[in-house]
Amino acid sequence: METIAFQDSYPDELSHCFGCGRNNPQGHQLKSYWQGEQTIAHYTPDEKYTAIPGFVYGGLLASLIDCHGTGSAAAAAYQAEGRALGSLPALRFVTAALHVDYLAPTPMGVPLQLVGTILEVKAKKVVVDIQLTADGVVCAKGQVIAVKMPETMTLS
Amino acid sequence: METIAFQDSYPDELSHCFGCGRNNPQGHQLKSYWQGEQTIAHYTPDEKYTAIPGFVYGGLLASLIDCHGTGSAAAAAYQAEGRALGSLPALRFVTAALHVDYLAPTPMGVPLQLVGTILEVKAKKVVVDIQLTADGVVCAKGQVIAVKMPETMTLS
Repeated sequence: METIAFQDSYPDELSHCFGCGRNNPQGHQLKSYWQGEQTIAHYTPDEKYTAIPGFVYGGLLASLIDCHGTGSAAAAAYQAEGRALGSLPALRFVTAALHVDYLAPTPMGVPLQLVGTILEVKAKKVVVDIQLTADGVVCAKGQVIAVKMPETMTLS
Repeated sequence: METIAFQDSYPDELSHCFGCGRNNPQGHQLKSYWQGEQTIAHYTPDEKYTAIPGFVYGGLLASLIDCHGTGSAAAAAYQAEGRALGSLPALRFVTAALHVDYLAPTPMGVPLQLVGTILEVKAKKVVVDIQLTADGVVCAKGQVIAVKMPETMTLS
């Protein structure tokens, strides 16, 4: 399995995403990796991403689930095509639908872990389930339906 | 109908949310209002909230839908109880489930409009549908299932 983060294999022009782009210095710069047949990412929120004092803002959790989902979708699509991660032409996915169930308040100040399970891989659509835990407690479960990025989204 | 933003009626200690808290200077400070029987909010994203250059990051859209949803839920709950917005004890809602369908790429640089429709109001649960438009085009549709904030989320 590759040790480069999925998001670090994106072409430069597709690496500006606030959630996961290495070329967005103000963003979250989420990094996702294979872990066996699942995918994994870690992120420790800054205190500004508060909901109620002591707990993490749900919008951030949705964002992390979203970016870990589309990153996992790209990696799964490369794998399904037997291609090396990041090889050209780039396989880049965007979110068609995002669902998040918030199961427990997410504590601030501890690393969050996101584990992705690839449910379905088709040529233009990948479905990923994601579990977000803090200190071993499952705080949120998400599902991302990712679709191959439409040509209309590239401006170059 | 009230002209104060729902989020500006929250007590100080519940106003730190990155998405909508007036006491979070680094956050989005989303403001939601009644518009007839629906709720409305506007937000123009900063360019750092990019997905692919030219388009808004889906995680931000999920965040705005989330905060407009929980704000609308609180306002609807006050209305259902015949109480003035912001009167004590505070009615504050958190998200149990968030669903977003991304229908079209959301262009950067234009004001986004969120319109909420209250689908269901029960004592501890409110369901809100939200439509997000940019330049009159529906870019995303969301649903927020909001539940009354559990006592365990207040640290004071």
